[in-house]
Amino acid sequence: MRTIEWKHGTVTTIDQTQLPHKTVFLKMTCCHDVEEAIRTMKIRGAPLLGAAAGYGLALTAYHSTAEEKRELIEELDASARDLRRTRPTAVNLFWAIERIMLKAEETDGDAATIVKVVVEEAGRIAVQDVRANRKIGEIGSKLIEEKDTVLTHCNAGRLATVDHGTALAIVRAAWTEGKRFNVIATETRPLLQGARLTAYELHSDGIPITLITDNMVGHVMYGRVVDKVLVGADRVVKDAIINKIGTYQIAVLAHKHEIPFYVAAPTSTFDTQRLAKDITVEHRTAEEVTKFQGVQVAPKGVPALNPAFDITPLEYVSAIICEKGIIHQEDYGKSLVF
Amino acid sequence: MRTIEWKHGTVTTIDQTQLPHKTVFLKMTCCHDVEEAIRTMKIRGAPLLGAAAGYGLALTAYHSTAEEKRELIEELDASARDLRRTRPTAVNLFWAIERIMLKAEETDGDAATIVKVVVEEAGRIAVQDVRANRKIGEIGSKLIEEKDTVLTHCNAGRLATVDHGTALAIVRAAWTEGKRFNVIATETRPLLQGARLTAYELHSDGIPITLITDNMVGHVMYGRVVDKVLVGADRVVKDAIINKIGTYQIAVLAHKHEIPFYVAAPTSTFDTQRLAKDITVEHRTAEEVTKFQGVQVAPKGVPALNPAFDITPLEYVSAIICEKGIIHQEDYGKSLVF
Repeated sequence: MRTIEWKHGTVTTIDQTQLPHKTVFLKMTCCHDVEEAIRTMKIRGAPLLGAAAGYGLALTAYHSTAEEKRELIEELDASARDLRRTRPTAVNLFWAIERIMLKAEETDGDAATIVKVVVEEAGRIAVQDVRANRKIGEIGSKLIEEKDTVLTHCNAGRLATVDHGTALAIVRAAWTEGKRFNVIATETRPLLQGARLTAYELHSDGIPITLITDNMVGHVMYGRVVDKVLVGADRVVKDAIINKIGTYQIAVLAHKHEIPFYVAAPTSTFDTQRLAKDITVEHRTAEEVTKFQGVQVAPKGVPALNPAFDITPLEYVSAIICEKGIIHQEDYGKSLVF
Repeated sequence: MRTIEWKHGTVTTIDQTQLPHKTVFLKMTCCHDVEEAIRTMKIRGAPLLGAAAGYGLALTAYHSTAEEKRELIEELDASARDLRRTRPTAVNLFWAIERIMLKAEETDGDAATIVKVVVEEAGRIAVQDVRANRKIGEIGSKLIEEKDTVLTHCNAGRLATVDHGTALAIVRAAWTEGKRFNVIATETRPLLQGARLTAYELHSDGIPITLITDNMVGHVMYGRVVDKVLVGADRVVKDAIINKIGTYQIAVLAHKHEIPFYVAAPTSTFDTQRLAKDITVEHRTAEEVTKFQGVQVAPKGVPALNPAFDITPLEYVSAIICEKGIIHQEDYGKSLVF
């Protein structure tokens, strides 16, 4: 199945906090269910957040008893406001909400007409994500060469999207083409998306993966083990990419070791009118750091920082792969899409 | 108490794998107990490994029934061989063994005389470690300024030594002098010595400590939060320092952000006749990475790397603080002790 699916007013997804050991399906029947799943990271990954936000609004529309357009729009506005408050950094969530709200506003007709349009538009966002990611895979696979070792961070895989993944779409496409190579995944503390999700996806697909802790990146690069780095993004702005905490230091280390650093992201992740300084980096609870999978590790009362993302200036990004092509560093600012 | 203590043929230490939640004292009455404690990391930290190895030989001597010097030396040789096989990277272990074996060899007399000499020498190693660390604190405290934020990695504290610590001896001395500053500790995966041990030591001492995951180092440096880095070392060689995995990338990141990177280590950690390429970096079991406190995190069957240490070339080390003084980068190779 796809990571998120709509059927007759119910949205089904996998609870990603339970993976890899338990596959628990989550059935959501109202927008509040979606908000809660996003806030608790049962749903995560920038493109998936876009699709989920779309389906959240679709649930509000589908189950509404409104008869007039204006009344339904008010309900959708309330859901949109709640969804926007869940997580501030990944742009796809905001992008999907704007897209659906605009569509609803510009449609003439009664509430039933608007409901149909909203549900269709949410479905279209999901379908387009699948297509964009497949395209990213096709386009980006040329960057992976036989016998490469590709380092990836966090999970930019199927589970971060509706299907295929972004960085991992490239890995999968190259593998399907018959290239043989290795992947190193950082475990990605505090929530271990690398150890739990990326390892799960690639291991299931039979693609050789080796896990490292986040502090081994420099060491494996120093040992000339890594040929390229390939990550996703939560937001691509004019001067930087914003992605899972730890991305910045991997980019600096790659630069120092002269290793190409690639970012795979659909254009739904692009926000190229803004600068990094304008973006809110989400800070999550210290307990995610002081505990390890719910078990207290640090002495009680010790404070911790927990920024969920960091900022990687574009000077460290060798190229960005989107569904429209590969944008190389020398072309930033010149491209049609960037 | 000190981290390791000798009393009438019993060596007592704290089981560091149980900290910070449980303080379990470990009583060791033969050298095999010491070897086992080192191998399982109940005892860890380069200077402490030196003291423990010394006491291991002292236990062999103390409980020996040998009457002749030759017979006792053979028993000590066997213990020395077993101790050398426990962990290969920290030099202090080898240094302490050599020192005691030499002392035993060069002493004339019967077994009882040698026993006395060996036990005394082991005690002297421990006492000298305490003195060297106190001195490192006195000398190094000038490097810490009022309102600094000092980043440290792993645990170079009291628990890594007989007392005071190395990097943390400096932190403690500066604090005792009345300077007020902040410490950031990396949690230090996979065994979490930062979250468990450094946080425990400094929090108990009332020194402000904030915990971060290993992948937040770049981000806090990018945010200009860190004024200096202060770590210990497991071995200082002619061209590098060898320390806990993750040290290298912190050093590269400090260099890139123009943040001084200091290493505190007693001369018992110096091995300045050798180069980094001559040193064995210990690789530990993959399960330390794929599991957490016995609970499987990654999918079963996923391989992991687990180098316990990495190599930081001296070009990234601003100064080394030992009990004889501060050796600045421009003086490497010129100093009496280096």
